[in-house]
Amino acid sequence: MNQLWLARLKAVRDARWFSNLTTAIIIFYASVLGFKTLEEAAQPYGNILYVLDWIVTVYFVVELGIKMAVEEKFSDFFKNKWNVFDFVIVAVTLIPLENSSFAAIARLMRVFRILRLFTARPELKAILDMLIKAIPSIVDIVILMFIIFYIYAIIGSFLFMDMPSGLWEDFLISMLTLFRILTFEDWTDVMYETMEVYPWSWVYYVSFIIIAAFVFFNLFVAVIIGEMQKLQNAQADEERHADHETLKELLVEVKELKQLLREKNT
Amino acid sequence: MNQLWLARLKAVRDARWFSNLTTAIIIFYASVLGFKTLEEAAQPYGNILYVLDWIVTVYFVVELGIKMAVEEKFSDFFKNKWNVFDFVIVAVTLIPLENSSFAAIARLMRVFRILRLFTARPELKAILDMLIKAIPSIVDIVILMFIIFYIYAIIGSFLFMDMPSGLWEDFLISMLTLFRILTFEDWTDVMYETMEVYPWSWVYYVSFIIIAAFVFFNLFVAVIIGEMQKLQNAQADEERHADHETLKELLVEVKELKQLLREKNT
Amino acid sequence: MNQLWLARLKAVRDARWFSNLTTAIIIFYASVLGFKTLEEAAQPYGNILYVLDWIVTVYFVVELGIKMAVEEKFSDFFKNKWNVFDFVIVAVTLIPLENSSFAAIARLMRVFRILRLFTARPELKAILDMLIKAIPSIVDIVILMFIIFYIYAIIGSFLFMDMPSGLWEDFLISMLTLFRILTFEDWTDVMYETMEVYPWSWVYYVSFIIIAAFVFFNLFVAVIIGEMQKLQNAQADEERHADHETLKELLVEVKELKQLLREKNT
Amino acid sequence: MNQLWLARLKAVRDARWFSNLTTAIIIFYASVLGFKTLEEAAQPYGNILYVLDWIVTVYFVVELGIKMAVEEKFSDFFKNKWNVFDFVIVAVTLIPLENSSFAAIARLMRVFRILRLFTARPELKAILDMLIKAIPSIVDIVILMFIIFYIYAIIGSFLFMDMPSGLWEDFLISMLTLFRILTFEDWTDVMYETMEVYPWSWVYYVSFIIIAAFVFFNLFVAVIIGEMQKLQNAQADEERHADHETLKELLVEVKELKQLLREKNT
Repeated sequence: MNQLWLARLKAVRDARWFSNLTTAIIIFYASVLGFKTLEEAAQPYGNILYVLDWIVTVYFVVELGIKMAVEEKFSDFFKNKWNVFDFVIVAVTLIPLENSSFAAIARLMRVFRILRLFTARPELKAILDMLIKAIPSIVDIVILMFIIFYIYAIIGSFLFMDMPSGLWEDFLISMLTLFRILTFEDWTDVMYETMEVYPWSWVYYVSFIIIAAFVFFNLFVAVIIGEMQKLQNAQADEERHADHETLKELLVEVKELKQLLREKNT
Repeated sequence: MNQLWLARLKAVRDARWFSNLTTAIIIFYASVLGFKTLEEAAQPYGNILYVLDWIVTVYFVVELGIKMAVEEKFSDFFKNKWNVFDFVIVAVTLIPLENSSFAAIARLMRVFRILRLFTARPELKAILDMLIKAIPSIVDIVILMFIIFYIYAIIGSFLFMDMPSGLWEDFLISMLTLFRILTFEDWTDVMYETMEVYPWSWVYYVSFIIIAAFVFFNLFVAVIIGEMQKLQNAQADEERHADHETLKELLVEVKELKQLLREKNT
Repeated sequence: MNQLWLARLKAVRDARWFSNLTTAIIIFYASVLGFKTLEEAAQPYGNILYVLDWIVTVYFVVELGIKMAVEEKFSDFFKNKWNVFDFVIVAVTLIPLENSSFAAIARLMRVFRILRLFTARPELKAILDMLIKAIPSIVDIVILMFIIFYIYAIIGSFLFMDMPSGLWEDFLISMLTLFRILTFEDWTDVMYETMEVYPWSWVYYVSFIIIAAFVFFNLFVAVIIGEMQKLQNAQADEERHADHETLKELLVEVKELKQLLREKNT
Repeated sequence: MNQLWLARLKAVRDARWFSNLTTAIIIFYASVLGFKTLEEAAQPYGNILYVLDWIVTVYFVVELGIKMAVEEKFSDFFKNKWNVFDFVIVAVTLIPLENSSFAAIARLMRVFRILRLFTARPELKAILDMLIKAIPSIVDIVILMFIIFYIYAIIGSFLFMDMPSGLWEDFLISMLTLFRILTFEDWTDVMYETMEVYPWSWVYYVSFIIIAAFVFFNLFVAVIIGEMQKLQNAQADEERHADHETLKELLVEVKELKQLLREKNT
């Protein structure tokens, strides 16, 4: 393969339109696959799906081929673990299992083709990376939420254990009920039931909502929003940080200048 | 038409009060039109609507006339596609269709007069522009949401297919049910139903809510809020950016100064 | 009244503890007043309320007296419209109407004593001022929301008019139903009803929720949050703005310096 | 105990892994304790809990011992009130009450071991400190919310007192109903009930939701988010503040430079 073709293929691989095309094909394919259950009744559509399946497989193989071809050394391709991921997904769907006893698994594998979106769109990887980097900030709020849930669940399963609805039967179910209250899902139904036995139990619910949903849940949201905005404002942040360095450099420069002048004066 | 009048009309066209007046008239007219169904019973009100309709039409024609008159060349008017939009809306409602067979369409056209608010208030266009500019930031989060919805819908329609409520009947309905869970709308009803068959299915719902609603939905909100704040803080951002440039300029200047001093010293 | 006492009274009027004391008394009084209906059964509590009412009235008169006394000229007191507001609220409750036919009105007036919190806490006025200043930023988003509600209400009341629930009976009720959907309140009940007649009507609801609730409502929230943060970050903003000015000044200074050096060199 | 060992122990006490290990143990222990009610049926698990309880107690004693040992003076240990807190929690669980009449209390005390997470993770203390520092910013919005709730509760309990649902029976219950409306929990059920008697009562609900939930609740959220972001952006804020100082210093320096040059010129 001559150099010109290699350069052209490299340009294709890195092109925005190629990434967008792959994205569009995966999403279209996934959508059609999703409607399969609807379409099984109508046989002709089933055939279309079969053709589509075939086209997508070919497209994936060609795409993978391009990515392999443009590598300097063939073994470099497998050094990137996302490439390995791509290779496995494409390879598995090439195995002819349709009529074997593994047909169900083969069909399931095709569902995971949607995960190839991560390799097609580097932005998705950036968002996932950001979320992973945000974990240390989130973990402490999650622990705080756990403490609140824990204490309320213990109190709740202790006080309201015998409620006929069974929403406070044990610790785990109490946790689930509290999670439901956190989403405000019919929480008054839960409250009105216990208020018939304990008229003051509204204090329990209102305090939980204020502490867990109003205060701590918003802290959690604040961290997510903050990290996202950091990702978006990366440029502004970089500029601001660069400014900080420039300023310090400036101060040094000006002080040197003064020194120079003083030396000359004497 | 002499120059003085032209200048006066131009001043009117660009005046804040003119924009506010047009806004008020459109909103008032749209509100009255909305209550038409209420008022059809009472004939006198119907007449008032007829008069109002006539007044608004005249106002719109006059407004359009002003905008046309102040253009240097008449053809410039149609170069702005918002002007074309205005012209079509006004022109269509001038066609006397009230008693023809197109009466229903004519009435419908009048509803779209509310869209003229976009031409009356440049701020609305700014917000729309901002949203359009935000699409590239949003599209990746939408794709991530699609992946999450897709995988959960596949699993949901596979596991819970035979639920009597029919909420997981096929892929599309599962998607709709997941959307409903995203808005926390009676999601426990959905969960309690499946928990009777699969006691551990709460893991499915709780994990979906945490991933889709708590994490990714807030990323989406963060982008929207971020873009809006960028629009609002445009001035501060500009200043900050200007500062960045000024600082770099300063550093260059100070270094030149030092150079100048050194040259003199030697 | 000698100067020393005047200064002392002024110090009291402006003291943090005085403002906090007044706040605490008003909130305590308002809370007790609120529970009046509970307490009417128990006569002794009624008497306590009577005593409390008397104490609060005296406190208010004394507080007003202090504010009047410390003014240089007595007429200055009424120049501040918040003082007039205080005066009217205190004066009205002094009129002995308890046993007259205006007793109900007199009782109602006492409820409005809670509004005195605005004069007791300047921070509340600052928040209200901020909200008033935010109106121009909000008004356009409100108009956009109105356009969305309007178009959806017209479509909704046209398509779903004959639903047995009567939720789309006319334009106004459709608006209310859309507002309900905006808050996610049992919106699936509304949807499932219309989906029985129009199976594709989920598009109407899902699109409304995405456009109105996810996008535009968050724009509205962004403006509120943005204004609040501006209020909180006033100091940082001021510093940043001062920096901007200082930088420009610096650049001028350095350029003058260079000029000075050049002049000397030649 | 020689110095080397002391230094080693100090390193252990301040190590990240030690803090993470303690966190993991507390959370694991708390989770197991929570499931106790589930496990009481199965005796063997009860024994495992007993063993676990013993291990955790030993770990806590050792941990406390390390913290005590590394203090210069033993009495310094009790000067930190968090250490006292730790000591009390550990000491109480050491008292052999299992078979006494205080067994229930002893079991309850173990639940509070989860609070030791605050001493194990300094970040949790930082978040709590931040929330305490945010109180002055929040208190005014809480007061505004109280005013809104108060006025609406008075009006609500006055107008809707005789509703069959009893949701507006008295002031306190009206407050609770308003809180429920704030969370959008089945608020239309409340509204539709009163709309049958007062067809215009939707104004009451819609205005409350717009004022309390859309505007003021978001102000509250804005303060929480703002404080959280301040905590997260502490570094950026510090840099920005340092920049502000550096800039002022720079201006002084440059002006001195100019002075120096001028002096030399003359």
